[in-house]
Amino acid sequence: MRNPSKVIRCRDYRWQGVGLKAYKQEPVPCRDLTRQVLLGEGPGEEALNFITRYFEVLPGGYSTLEVHQHPHAVIVLRGSGQVVLGEETHSISLFDCVYVAPGARHQFRAAGGEPLGFLCVVDRVRDRPQPVE
Amino acid sequence: MRNPSKVIRCRDYRWQGVGLKAYKQEPVPCRDLTRQVLLGEGPGEEALNFITRYFEVLPGGYSTLEVHQHPHAVIVLRGSGQVVLGEETHSISLFDCVYVAPGARHQFRAAGGEPLGFLCVVDRVRDRPQPVE
Repeated sequence: MRNPSKVIRCRDYRWQGVGLKAYKQEPVPCRDLTRQVLLGEGPGEEALNFITRYFEVLPGGYSTLEVHQHPHAVIVLRGSGQVVLGEETHSISLFDCVYVAPGARHQFRAAGGEPLGFLCVVDRVRDRPQPVE
Repeated sequence: MRNPSKVIRCRDYRWQGVGLKAYKQEPVPCRDLTRQVLLGEGPGEEALNFITRYFEVLPGGYSTLEVHQHPHAVIVLRGSGQVVLGEETHSISLFDCVYVAPGARHQFRAAGGEPLGFLCVVDRVRDRPQPVE
């Protein structure tokens, strides 16, 4: 096989050739959340044991409050907001890094004004998130 | 153990509590390259199977031209420059994403004016890079 290395160009928080998906459908309790899978699921990317995703939450939106056993490594690329980590809530802004440990309930919430965008890297093989009631 | 989840704040491309290291010493052929390990090597982060690092190359600097069997997932967070991927050279700028496949020779080069900064995620367990002559 030829060398599958590549550059995926970004323009306005959209990556070339990468589909934009609404993250989850109702009735899962999240609002205004989209996902782009940047690396790990494309052809030639099978060697990656982790998946690099970009999530974006519109102003006032939020991700599902959820829990799972796989950890998250997160970096904020756009905007600001809050992250719920266990029983705590922290403010987050550009390039802040978030570690979500196994079993920690978590939720990302966008502030007003601008979308909150963040990279979230996870293991390719991982358990399914469970929403927290 | 208490929940080891955390926010690591960023200010001016430095992350709170994260050490800054010169990436390699002479005679390895790289220039003006620093590294910060954001996630994966700190206490409580053992669940992460991958390591999230931030590299910065000063204007005109470059990383070692090297090869290894583990892949890289890269996102540019600052500045612009070029990446060598196999026999090709591509321009890169803010938020562009780069996949370095196993066995592909690669090098990151900063343009003039501003440092080139990028996240580079790798497997925790990985082979050692070999410089290319």
